[in-house]
Formats: sequence, C-alpha cells, structure tokens
Amino acid sequence: MQTRIENDSLGAKEVPADAYYGVQTVRAQENFPITGIPVHKELVLGLAEVKKAAALANMQTDMLAEPIGKAIVKAADEVIQGEHLQSFVVDSIQGGAGTSINMNMNEVLANRALELLGREKGDYNYISPNTHVNMSQSTNDTIPTALKIASFRMAEELTQTMTTLKKELTNKENEFQNVLKMGRTHLQDAVPIRLGQEFGAYSEMVGRDIKRITEAAKEMLTINLGATAVGTGLNAKPEYIEKVTVQLSAQLGMKLDMAKSLVDGTQNTDAYTTLSGALKVSTLNLSKICNDIRLMASGPMTGLQEISLPTRQPGSSIMPGKVNPVMVEVVNQVAFQVVGNDLSISMASEAGQFELNVMEPVIIFNLLQSLEIMKNGLDVFTRYAISGIEANVQRCREYVEDSYGIITALNPHLGYETAAKVVKQARETGLTIIEICKAHELLTEKELKTILDPAEMTTPGIAGSQFL
Amino acid sequence: MQTRIENDSLGAKEVPADAYYGVQTVRAQENFPITGIPVHKELVLGLAEVKKAAALANMQTDMLAEPIGKAIVKAADEVIQGEHLQSFVVDSIQGGAGTSINMNMNEVLANRALELLGREKGDYNYISPNTHVNMSQSTNDTIPTALKIASFRMAEELTQTMTTLKKELTNKENEFQNVLKMGRTHLQDAVPIRLGQEFGAYSEMVGRDIKRITEAAKEMLTINLGATAVGTGLNAKPEYIEKVTVQLSAQLGMKLDMAKSLVDGTQNTDAYTTLSGALKVSTLNLSKICNDIRLMASGPMTGLQEISLPTRQPGSSIMPGKVNPVMVEVVNQVAFQVVGNDLSISMASEAGQFELNVMEPVIIFNLLQSLEIMKNGLDVFTRYAISGIEANVQRCREYVEDSYGIITALNPHLGYETAAKVVKQARETGLTIIEICKAHELLTEKELKTILDPAEMTTPGIAGSQFL
Amino acid sequence: MQTRIENDSLGAKEVPADAYYGVQTVRAQENFPITGIPVHKELVLGLAEVKKAAALANMQTDMLAEPIGKAIVKAADEVIQGEHLQSFVVDSIQGGAGTSINMNMNEVLANRALELLGREKGDYNYISPNTHVNMSQSTNDTIPTALKIASFRMAEELTQTMTTLKKELTNKENEFQNVLKMGRTHLQDAVPIRLGQEFGAYSEMVGRDIKRITEAAKEMLTINLGATAVGTGLNAKPEYIEKVTVQLSAQLGMKLDMAKSLVDGTQNTDAYTTLSGALKVSTLNLSKICNDIRLMASGPMTGLQEISLPTRQPGSSIMPGKVNPVMVEVVNQVAFQVVGNDLSISMASEAGQFELNVMEPVIIFNLLQSLEIMKNGLDVFTRYAISGIEANVQRCREYVEDSYGIITALNPHLGYETAAKVVKQARETGLTIIEICKAHELLTEKELKTILDPAEMTTPGIAGSQFL
Amino acid sequence: MQTRIENDSLGAKEVPADAYYGVQTVRAQENFPITGIPVHKELVLGLAEVKKAAALANMQTDMLAEPIGKAIVKAADEVIQGEHLQSFVVDSIQGGAGTSINMNMNEVLANRALELLGREKGDYNYISPNTHVNMSQSTNDTIPTALKIASFRMAEELTQTMTTLKKELTNKENEFQNVLKMGRTHLQDAVPIRLGQEFGAYSEMVGRDIKRITEAAKEMLTINLGATAVGTGLNAKPEYIEKVTVQLSAQLGMKLDMAKSLVDGTQNTDAYTTLSGALKVSTLNLSKICNDIRLMASGPMTGLQEISLPTRQPGSSIMPGKVNPVMVEVVNQVAFQVVGNDLSISMASEAGQFELNVMEPVIIFNLLQSLEIMKNGLDVFTRYAISGIEANVQRCREYVEDSYGIITALNPHLGYETAAKVVKQARETGLTIIEICKAHELLTEKELKTILDPAEMTTPGIAGSQFL
Repeated sequence: MQTRIENDSLGAKEVPADAYYGVQTVRAQENFPITGIPVHKELVLGLAEVKKAAALANMQTDMLAEPIGKAIVKAADEVIQGEHLQSFVVDSIQGGAGTSINMNMNEVLANRALELLGREKGDYNYISPNTHVNMSQSTNDTIPTALKIASFRMAEELTQTMTTLKKELTNKENEFQNVLKMGRTHLQDAVPIRLGQEFGAYSEMVGRDIKRITEAAKEMLTINLGATAVGTGLNAKPEYIEKVTVQLSAQLGMKLDMAKSLVDGTQNTDAYTTLSGALKVSTLNLSKICNDIRLMASGPMTGLQEISLPTRQPGSSIMPGKVNPVMVEVVNQVAFQVVGNDLSISMASEAGQFELNVMEPVIIFNLLQSLEIMKNGLDVFTRYAISGIEANVQRCREYVEDSYGIITALNPHLGYETAAKVVKQARETGLTIIEICKAHELLTEKELKTILDPAEMTTPGIAGSQFL
Repeated sequence: MQTRIENDSLGAKEVPADAYYGVQTVRAQENFPITGIPVHKELVLGLAEVKKAAALANMQTDMLAEPIGKAIVKAADEVIQGEHLQSFVVDSIQGGAGTSINMNMNEVLANRALELLGREKGDYNYISPNTHVNMSQSTNDTIPTALKIASFRMAEELTQTMTTLKKELTNKENEFQNVLKMGRTHLQDAVPIRLGQEFGAYSEMVGRDIKRITEAAKEMLTINLGATAVGTGLNAKPEYIEKVTVQLSAQLGMKLDMAKSLVDGTQNTDAYTTLSGALKVSTLNLSKICNDIRLMASGPMTGLQEISLPTRQPGSSIMPGKVNPVMVEVVNQVAFQVVGNDLSISMASEAGQFELNVMEPVIIFNLLQSLEIMKNGLDVFTRYAISGIEANVQRCREYVEDSYGIITALNPHLGYETAAKVVKQARETGLTIIEICKAHELLTEKELKTILDPAEMTTPGIAGSQFL
Repeated sequence: MQTRIENDSLGAKEVPADAYYGVQTVRAQENFPITGIPVHKELVLGLAEVKKAAALANMQTDMLAEPIGKAIVKAADEVIQGEHLQSFVVDSIQGGAGTSINMNMNEVLANRALELLGREKGDYNYISPNTHVNMSQSTNDTIPTALKIASFRMAEELTQTMTTLKKELTNKENEFQNVLKMGRTHLQDAVPIRLGQEFGAYSEMVGRDIKRITEAAKEMLTINLGATAVGTGLNAKPEYIEKVTVQLSAQLGMKLDMAKSLVDGTQNTDAYTTLSGALKVSTLNLSKICNDIRLMASGPMTGLQEISLPTRQPGSSIMPGKVNPVMVEVVNQVAFQVVGNDLSISMASEAGQFELNVMEPVIIFNLLQSLEIMKNGLDVFTRYAISGIEANVQRCREYVEDSYGIITALNPHLGYETAAKVVKQARETGLTIIEICKAHELLTEKELKTILDPAEMTTPGIAGSQFL
Repeated sequence: MQTRIENDSLGAKEVPADAYYGVQTVRAQENFPITGIPVHKELVLGLAEVKKAAALANMQTDMLAEPIGKAIVKAADEVIQGEHLQSFVVDSIQGGAGTSINMNMNEVLANRALELLGREKGDYNYISPNTHVNMSQSTNDTIPTALKIASFRMAEELTQTMTTLKKELTNKENEFQNVLKMGRTHLQDAVPIRLGQEFGAYSEMVGRDIKRITEAAKEMLTINLGATAVGTGLNAKPEYIEKVTVQLSAQLGMKLDMAKSLVDGTQNTDAYTTLSGALKVSTLNLSKICNDIRLMASGPMTGLQEISLPTRQPGSSIMPGKVNPVMVEVVNQVAFQVVGNDLSISMASEAGQFELNVMEPVIIFNLLQSLEIMKNGLDVFTRYAISGIEANVQRCREYVEDSYGIITALNPHLGYETAAKVVKQARETGLTIIEICKAHELLTEKELKTILDPAEMTTPGIAGSQFL
C-alpha cells in the first residue's frame, strides 16, 4: 500500500496515500477496532451539514479566508450528497466523546478541499483539519448537533412510516367493524367484542406513539453549536455563534434553536434518553400488538385462527405448507432490541461527568439503530403483514356462539337464575347457549338475533333493551 | 379469633368477625403472600373515589336505591378521609389484574355500609360487594382509573418538590455566579467555567424534567370508567358512563376525560410506561448531578474539594470527623431503583394480551413506588444537601491558576508558538502560567486580570479582545 | 413523648426514652424517609450474628472486657431469636453504604446490653455503640457480611421451594406421559408431542436454575470480616481476623471463608450481581413456563383448553363462573419484578468507586426482595397451581387428529405425493387425515393405531417403521 | 443483472444468476431489510460445521447417497475455511427463528455442491437444500447448535483476552506494591492503602469473571442436534442422532453432549441468558475498574493525578496537549452496550412459547456482539491502557501525608484525645499531621517512619505496635 506521512501532536504516522482521512483517523482505527460497524451514515451527513454551516459562518464573520472556506463548503456538500462515505472509517464505539469521528470528518474535508484547490493531501499548513475545518468548533458542540440533526430526520421518517401503519390499522378497523368475536381477558373467555374494535385500539395506540415520538423529537431542535469545549463559547466569536445556528437552520429547513444555556446543552444528554424512551414505549406497544396478532393467527387447526396473515416464506422444511408469522415475529425482535438499546443509552447518559458526557458514541450507536430498525421493521410489517390480514369471520362468530360469554348479554332478559341454569345445561349437554334458549323457547329467533347483534353486544348499554 | 362465615361462588370461608373485608379478600390473602407490602395507600384512596363516583352515578341513573347508595358513599368518604386503611390487606403483587384489591374495596365498603345502616357484616343480600358496590363497574375499569388518580396526584406532589429543588439550584446558580473554577471534560482539565454556570445547567435540566413529568402525567387524565370488562361497556348504561367521569372530575377537581376508545383505554398501559419513562429520564439526570456533586465535594484533602456539603451524620466509627455525602448518595440509589422499576413496568406492559393487561398490579407497585421515593428523596436532598452547599472559592480559583487550561484564553494574545513555550516551561519548572507570563513580561498585570476575569473567560468570545 | 438526650460528634439530639436505638439512628430517620420500608429482617438477623461473632472474637483476643462482651452477646442473641425487631427503624434506601443500619444495630445492642447490666440507656461511656459493639469492625465489612449471610440463607430456602416445584413438575411429567397433544412452533401446528414431555422440559429447566442459584449462592460464603474500612484491616488484630470468621462459621453452621484479598472483598459487589443474575435467568424461565401454562389453560371455549388449573378465587363480578389463572399470573409478575430488581442491582454495582460501593443499601433492598418474592411466589404457585393441573386428554388428542401435523408421521408410509393429496383433500372436505386414510384404505386401522401411538410419534425415528 | 428462476412452495422467483444462495434467501432479503447487518460470521461458520457433521452422519446411516453427501461436505468445508462468506446475506434480525439463515446456508451448500459436481445452480432435483442439505435436521436444532458452537469459541477467545488482562493487572499489582496512597470511601479520604492492593483487587475481580464466563460457556456444550422440529426427533433415525453429536465433537475438538431432554433443549434459551448474564456481571466490574482508573488519572492539575495513562491520540482541537483516557472510556461504553444487549436477550428469552423460542435471531445478534466487543475492547484496553499505566508515586505519597487519614494509624500511639487535638491543629494551621507530631515531639522520626511504612499501615493490625 502506498502511504503518505502525516504528523499530529503525538508524532508521525503513515496514512494510505489516496485516503481522504488523515493521521488522527488512523490512530482512531488502531485504538478502536470494537464493533466493526462504522459510525451511522446519518450522523456523518449531519456532521457534514454542521461543518458547512460553520465554514459559512466563519467566512461571514471574517475568521476564515474565502478560498479556503469555499473549498471546505464544496467538500462538505459532496459528503452531503452522499460522496466519500467510505472515507468515514472510525468505529461506532469509540473513546473520546466523538473526537475521532469529528476528526475523521475534519480530515476528509480538509484533504478533499485541498484536492479541490489542486493541492496535495496532507498539506495542512494550507488547510488544517483543526484550524480551518474545525474553526470555532469543538467535538463537544459539533457531535451533539450532528446527532440531533440525524435523530430528528430519522424520527421524521419513522413517524411517517408509523402514520402509514396507523392508516392500515384504521383500514382494518373499518374492514372488520362487523366481525363479532369473543373478547378475552386473562386469556379466558370474557364478553363479545368486534375485531374492528381491537384494530381500532391498536390504531389509537400507534397514534399516541406517533405523537410522543414527534414531541420527543422536537427536543432535537435545540442545539449547542457555538458552545465550543465546555459551553462557555470560549474562542468563538459572539457573531459566529449568532450566525451559525441560523445558517444551519436555513440549510436544513429545520427550525433549530440555540440552547438557553450552552453549558447545559453541552453536558447533558436527556434529550436522547427522552427520544429513546419514547421509542421504547412505542415498541412495547407494538410488541403487545404483535403478540395479539400472533395469537389470533395461531393454528391453523390447533390455535385460535381468528385471522390469517399473508404468506411470505415457507415456514418449515419438514412439513409442507407450514407458514409462520415471520413478519410479526420480526417486530417483536425489533422491540426487544430497542428496549435493550434504551438501557445502553440510559446507562451512558447517567455516566456524564462535569462539562461533558464522554459516552456519547454509544448513545449515537444505539439511538440511530433504534430509529432505523423501527422504521425498517414497521415498513415491512405494514406492507407484508397488516395490510394483508384477513378475518376468519365464521370462526370468530362460532367462538361467540359456542362460548358461555354471551350469557352475560342474555342475563338481563332471562334473569340470573334461569341464565345460570342455561349455562349449567350447556356444560352438561355440549349444546350451545343459543341452542338451549331456542329449545326451551326462552327467547325468540328475532330476540336472539337482536340481542346478539354485534353492534348491540359491543356498545355500551344493555343489548336488546327494547324487549325488556 | 372470632370469625363469621361468608360465601362466594367457590364456597364458604371463615372471615375474622370484626373485619370489614370479606371472603374474597381472605382468599386473596391466602393466594398472594408475596411481598408482604400491601397495595399503596394512594391507590386505595383513588379507588375509594371511584367507588363513590360510581355509586353517585348509579343513583343518578336509577340503578341503585338511595339508602344503599348513600351508605356506600358514606363508607367511601370515610376511606377517602383516611379511615379503615388497615382493612386493605391484599398484597401489592397479586394475580388477577387487580380483582383482589377491587374486591377488597368492594367488601370493605359493603360491610361498612351495612354497619352504617345498622346491619350485620356479611349481609350481602342487602348490600352486595359485587351487585351494589361494584355496580356498572369491572376491575378492568376501576383499577386503571384508581391508578391514574393516584399517579396524577403523586406526580403533582413530585413536581412541586422538584420545583423547590430547581429553585434551590437557581439560588446556587446566582450565589456561585462569580466563582471561577476549572471546567473538566473527560475528567481532564479543560477551560475555565463558573460554578454558577454548572448549577444553572442543573437547574435547566431539572426544569426540563418537571415539564416532561407534567406532560406525561396529563396522560393520567384520560380514564376508561364505564368500559366494564373489555371496553365495550356491556351492561353499563350510557347515561351512567356519561355521568360517572363528570362526577369523578368534580369530586377530585381534576379535568378527567373518557378515553376516545374504551377498548383501547382498557387494554393498554402505555400511559404508565410513558410516565415511568419520564421518571427514569429525570432520575438519570439527577444521578448525573449527584455524581458531579460528590466529585466536587470529594476530599477533604485528597479530592477536589471545590464545594462543601452540610454535615448530616457521622460518617465513620473509625475516623473521627469523617463525613460522607449521604444525602447525595441516597438520590443515586433512588435513581437506580426508579430505573429498575421502569424495567419491571416495561416488561409488564409488554405482557398485555387481548382486551386486558393482567400484569397491572406489578405496574401499580412500581409506578407508585417510583413517584414516592423520588418525591421523598428529592425533598431531603434539597433541604439537607443542595440548600447548604458552600463553594470553596479559593480552592476553585487556585485550580484555574495552577492549571494549564487558561493558556487557551491567553492563546490569542501570545500567539500559538509562545503559548506552547509557556506551557512547556510551566511543566518543567512547576511555575504557573501566570507566574511565567509575569516573569517574562509577556502580559501586564492589568491585561492578565482582564483576560482572566471570570466573566470574560466564561462567556462567548475572545477574553480581553480589547488588548488585541 | 418522653425523651432522653444523646450526643454524637455532631451534637445532642432527643431520642425516645424507651428506644433501644440512639442518636445516630434518629439522625438516619430524619435523613432517609424514602421508601417507608425498613431494612429487611434477614439482614438484621445476619448483622446480629456478625456482632455476636465479633464480640466473641474480641473477647478471645483480649480486646473486649468479659462483662461488656457477654452483655453484647446476650443482646445479639435476643435479636437473633427475633426480639427487638421493631427497634430497627432505618429505611431500606439510605445513604452511607449501610452506616445507618450498622449504627442502628450498634445502638440497639449497646442499649440492650446496658439494660441487661442494670444501667441506663445511653450510658455509652460504659458500653459504646462504636467503641465496644463495633470494635474491630467497620460498616464496610459488617454490612457485606450480613448481606451474604442473609442472601445465602434465603437462597437456600428458595432452592428448597424450587426443588418442591421441580418435583411437582416431574410428577406431572409422569402423570401426563401418555397424553398426546399437538406440538406448536411459532404458535403454529407443528408435530405431535406428549404433554408429559413438555412438563419434563419445565422440570429440567427448573433443575438447571436450582443448580445455578446454588452455585451463585456459594459466592456468599466468601466474606470480608476483618477488612475494616478499606480492606487493609487497619486497627483489627490479625488474631481477631483469624478468629472472627471461624466463630461466625461455627455459629451459623456455614462454611465461611475470608476473601483472598480483603481489599477486593470490600470494594466489589459482583457476588451480588451474580446471584441476582441467576435469579433473573430463573424468573425468565419461569415466566416462559407461566406463559405456556396460561396458553394451555386458555378458554374454556375460545382458547386451547388443553389443561385445567385449580380454581382459586372468583375471576369476575360480571360473569358467573369466570375463573382466571391468577396463581400463574402472579409468577409472571414476580419475574418482572426480579428482572427490574436485577437492573437496579446492576447499576448500583457499577457505581462503586475506589475502596467501597456506597450504593450497597439499594443492592440489599432489591436482592433480598427478589429472593423473598421468588420463594413466596413459587411456593403458592406449586401448591395452588402446578400440583392441581389436570390434562384435558380428549381435547389434546382431538387437536392431534384434527390437525394436518400428523401427516409428517404418515409421510414415510404414504409417500410424499399421496400425503400431499391427503392434506389437500382434508382441507377441501373438512375431513380429518385419519378419516381420509381410512376411507381410501391407504392404511389399516392397525397401522394407523401403531403409527399414531404417542410413544411412536414422539420419540426419535420413523413411526411405525415395521410396516415399511 | 442476469438471473435464474427458482421455485419453492410459494412459487417462482428471480435469483441472481451467479448467486450461491437461492429463492428462499431472496424472499428473506425482501422480508427483513432491518439492521443492514448480516448474521455474524461465527454463526455462519458454526452452522457450516453442523451441516458437515449432519451430512457425514446421514451418509453413515445410509440416508444420503455418497456422491451428494461428499459434495455437501466439500462445500461446507469451503465455508468453514472462510470462503463464500459474502453469500450469507440475510439480516441479523429476522422473523422465523433462524429459518432464513438456515435456508441461506442450505441453498449455498446445495448450489456449491451442484457446482462441484458439474451441475447447474438451482438443479435442486439433484441436490435439494431441504431434502439433502437439511436432511434429518430442522432450523430448530441446527441454529441453536450453531449458536452454541459460535458462543463457545468466542467465549474461549474472550477468556484468553481476559487472562492477558488479568496478567497485566497482576503485573501492575506487583509494580505498585509499595506505592502508598490514600484509600477513599464515599470519595472521601479514608485510610492509607497501596496502589498495588487496588490493582490486585482488580485482578482478583477479573479472575472471578473469567471463571464465571468459563463456567457459563460450558452450557454451550450441551446441544440438541437430532431434535428436529420440536425435540421429539421425528423423522430422524436414532442411529443418526447418536452419530451426529459424536461427529460434530470430533470435527470441532469440543466435548459436546446431547441434551438430556431434546424437547427442553429445543424450547429453552436459558443457556444464552446465563452466558450473557456472566458477560453483564463482568462488564459491570470492568466499568467500575474503568471509573476508578479515570478518576485516578484525572487532572493533570485539577484532578487526582495518581496515575498516568499512555497517550493514544490528541484529545482536543482547542487545547494543545490535552489527552483523554479514551482507551478506558471505550470499555465503559462496551459495558453499557453489553448490559443493554443482555436485556434484549433476556426479553427475547422470556418470549419463548411452547416448543420453540422464535426470537432466537435477536439473541444471536446480541450475544455474539457482546462476546465480540468485549474481546476487542479488552484487547486494546490491556495493550494501550493497562500495560502502560505509570504511578505518580510522589503525588500518591503527598496525599497520604497531607491528609488527616493517617491519624487513624497514629491513634493507638497518641491516644484518642491527643490525636483529636493534632487533627484540630492541622486544620487550623494548614500544617500536616506529621509536621505537628514532629514539632511537638509526639513521635520520633523513627517511630513515624515505622508507623507510616506502607506495609505497616496497609496490612491488618496496629501499625508500629512494637512501640506500644
């Protein structure tokens, strides 16, 4: 491998000759061969936006010479457009609060800017990763800002996906509005309900989660750019601080605000635990929905079989025709992953000390993963599972008619004593409640039909009260 | 022990003769000797409020005879005023989604109502725990409603306590506004900051938490009373459903709303995971603050000793005079407890199935404990730790002057090369940066004083820029 | 309230006149009104054992005068026999690494010893809580030792309860050995299995957990008594250190060992996270078993209804006869509690610093609670749920015969093509696989009986291979 | 892209013409675009070993024709040697309990075997992924077995790395055996200790963790190969079952055992939660060590600065010379990741139902990641941090001499009253305890030297007892 020599305060180091990254990135690679997974692409894109905004604000406040500044902006724009992504090589889990990914970016932009100006890579006397690209900045304000940009954008994508999911659930609510089935509590027969009501409840729940995630994501809009090392803004011109957030907002079309206290904004990570917490709540809900769906789809012959799921892949190599609810199981697993990620984030957040939380890389790793896998998981879940669910209307109705749960609706018409006798006889004979009522002429066909009407039995009040 | 005999659908059972509770409570005691800790008092109070509102709404809709209804209301009022609390004996962790505590309440109110009417305890033909006290209700709507009342009230008390804490932190922010100290990142010397800025950041953070908890607590105001067993309101009159929430709101002075979908309101527990999640985020923040404070107070001779905490109790039996930061350590522990509780709640929430989450008792146990210990912990933390913190101004200042971190502020005045030489000489000689600058007449006394002025060095911009 | 005045290094304080505890306990009560739950009784008993052993070892090494030492031992013996427990009033969650409960014990023993010698409470010049009761000790060695004694004993009780559970599961394994049922994977019909095999698997799993908990509990046998403040044993005579562990072992009938490194033994808490982790693994297993049992018992008409659970309490006030699996649900909740507790313990354990983990009180609180609620929960679970489970043999068998899963067993006899046709016809006609095989004379009655014999179909190999 | 058409029971599908994988892998790719991270390489290698052993056992029991079997073995050997790894494309988080990765392997081996025999890819009539490669197997026995192989191997590598870490800690224990420093409890000055004792405690702790992980990893040696779908071994010849585990053991040089109950072995995942739990305990310990090290290395001027860490990369772009403890911070982050992973695994484990835990993919993902990042993290931690730690002997000693903590050692020599006066005077004058003792001729130079000798002060007993 051809190399060039670069120097930093610790000495000289070989760097691959054609690499845009430089000496500090090489050190970071040596130091942190941990997960093998590079820092998330969305963090890189957000950081490039920050570098662009900073360069522009530095030029506007006469800190940075135009030719250099423009070259940096051009280089940043290339990254923003998705170029050079393979140059961001440092590991997701890294010591140093993100210094390594910040320097990886500073070096890539410096070297690409040098190249754009026809100079050699590594000619840091002309454009320095630190002095020029990182001007008026610190890892401690750029990395949190980049994370907030990335999180906000990914949260937006997620809530869009969730909105589609909610719509499909509402479609199913409408489609299954008249599918009467047995409600269950404690997994025991309770009283009738409509399948549509259950999907309506799921839809409501997802709706609340969209709202919560949207609210939590708004915390991403408060950034600490200009804080520099500890939030005091040392060595950042007030005019720069003023301009850089405005510039970044304009670039991104996001309404960013500077933290009321930049010291607070630099040291604390509760915005992330809040967003992760909202994701956790949502995945717990989704896992509950998935558990219900898997139960309802259980069978075909030895389970509940109230609904059927679309077939997505063969389920077994031994039994021809076995199909498993794989698109539902995967969302359960996403949920478990997100809950675990939330714990990693929580512990990292608690570990902040004084002016900085140096555990931010592991927060970035987990928060962006949670956002991504939720979006990906819910997208396929909606398309390949929810939208294709079919109700087994007959089976659902039979359950209602076979069970003793409808006696609760007949109670006001038969009186408690007679009702109890009917149930007893049903148990002894194996006949259904309806059959016994007909046989003993306790209720007419018409009365039974009215009382056991889905709408009657599953809305507040006494079913068939007109007959009383 | 004198006993009376009571019957339920499973048969006869001895009950202590003077007990207000009845046969089902006795069964629950036998079944659930788990934690030894009875259901939280606030849940009991909330549930008594529900029973009162239900009795009133049942009377208003001609379901419940006045004499019986009034006796039930009177009995409920006594519980609300704190009487009979020793009659609520069922364990915090119980199977059955809260049926046992609901029946414990139904039995206590029935028996006390019977007593008020001059009848024998256990005369359930006259007033029945099920038929009369539980009329138009189900465990599945009363227990969630009681939990929401309890949580909302306890969250209000908690946020009041947190508001006092925030005020004390702001007082300290002001008091320490001019205490210059060394900022630290990675536990390494960074650049100067003011102690007041740090306390200001803590105050901001607690302020956000108050807002988050307040927001989350609002979810407690949506209740499912009237849902009965599965949210369809079967056997509950529409007029009752309408009136009962209004009645309860009036009673409590809380703006309660009925869930848009009672099915959703009955089966889902995300309101609790949301509130618990907000508590978790807050305690992670508090733990971070506590960690900082313990570090700042470390010493007296071999630690940082930047601040002193009030002495609350002797710290050691071996060393006279040892004092430990016990009021801070206890808040760390509260935080760990709340994070653990949040996980228990999360797992319980995920375990809901179909129309009900039967794991609600363990949710109640943990959520109310979290609310309580946070309030209790933060109350003593504020009074016995925060409000008495004193800054060791001299020590803080010495750290700034001894460290090399101030070179960052002198940088623009000396130039990078000279600055580097000054640091080098400081390391070699053991002299401070200031001493060297004076010795070499690099900066005048006045310049140094201005540049190193706390306000200059710890606000955005270049300290002493007038000398450039 | 009558009071007496006591003094400590912070000054004078009123103490209830008849209290055995003293001034430092009063301070702790003021400082830590957190959970309202006093320190666990088993910790108190363990600590009293430690005090007794220390007093005896101090007398043996001529540090403590006989009359004083004997009075302390007598007082400790009283506590060990369950007296004075109401005197241990400090809160479970307390700052100070357990100093408060240690001093609570020192004060109670000092005052009771004084009383036994005919002296006034508070006459600490004669017997001092610190100088005499706490002689050669520190909170940092006595509290960990007391926790280890308590944990070991409670773990023993737990594993005994688990052994009974395992036995009952094995009984059910045998009882259900010939109950053929449908195996399910992904909640979808798979291939036949015997109900006894399932209970056998549960039994195996519980057996592994007993072994793991037993192994983990052995770590409790390594103690750090004699370490004093930081593990260096400063001010504790070598002879005392030698004798005190021997004495304590003899007292308890436990084979206690001194930690190889007392510094390690004092600063680290991984023995507790290990034990708690073993409890966590076990409760996850138990929760899985409970989930299965609740599914198998679901119904009666709209669920699987493969087994029936004993009826323990009425399940609903609305539906006569509804019974819920409450004794199973409570174990699920115990599991969630134990998993949450494990997280609290884990975070507390991580928070140790230098020579001590000051978060030990919250570890004690959660570890002993986990041990207790597991034991209590599993005891009633075994007696009120497992031992009374009945198999619904007919229903189980019907599932096997109705499902298409048995085609897998017939496959080798029919050939794949014919088998596929049989399944197709079964789906179209609603007839069972068996009915079709008979109708088409594909297999004889005898062949079918042999192939579908439970033992044949549910043990390795090809069922009915003799007919091939 | 050139494609070929393949069919499965759901129909036809295009597959890239040159792909070794087939139609079911293509379906899985469509279904599960979740994390973007393919299944861990070690799982793939373990699974190839399983396929090889199964093919050999199938040949030995005359189930599989030699030419086909040998080609499958050859193909598996290639994968085992690291070829074709890019053909394993299915996502880490996938529905279906691992069916997709199992089929991915079955297809790759079938197609490569076909190729080796000079046939076309996709000619499944000749060699079928299901009939031949998966013969006598099921996802439900191959995937758990592959995970156990992978986990065991990775656990072995991890414990080797940890053994090296332990060795380095012991080296430091020896190197720092005479470095006297101040012990701290509650972050407050306690009594003296030697730096070597602290590193010795770390070494002990890591030693216990090695033992625990080694023990837990042994659970990986019990496998369920031969269980087929639900553990009954249906359609697997007893002779095959006998041979396959023996064959696999021989191949791997591992002492594998068949589960006592294959039903248990198929449905339960507690072996994984146990191993993950051991990793969690270990990382909590490591995080504690890291926290201590970062505190000891804090400074250089405003922290404790008792030790110095090797410089690995520049720490700041603003302050020349700032160096951060990045190699220590990264291990803290690994710890948080592992604890979060453990929770994901725990929740997935609890979610098993009946004969199978379908959440196994997310268990695989997290367990193998934990094993990998611990190994990677501890490797660089040992080499780049621990082995280069230097003690700041002078600073450590000054702390001891400056602090009042040594008064505890002087106590027996001065008497409590005098000792108290010395401390008081020290506080008032700013002189050290030693200076005052000398000034007042309370102790001779020689006495002081003996008493304050590191070995004396930091081993059990009364320092300088010969002078008493």
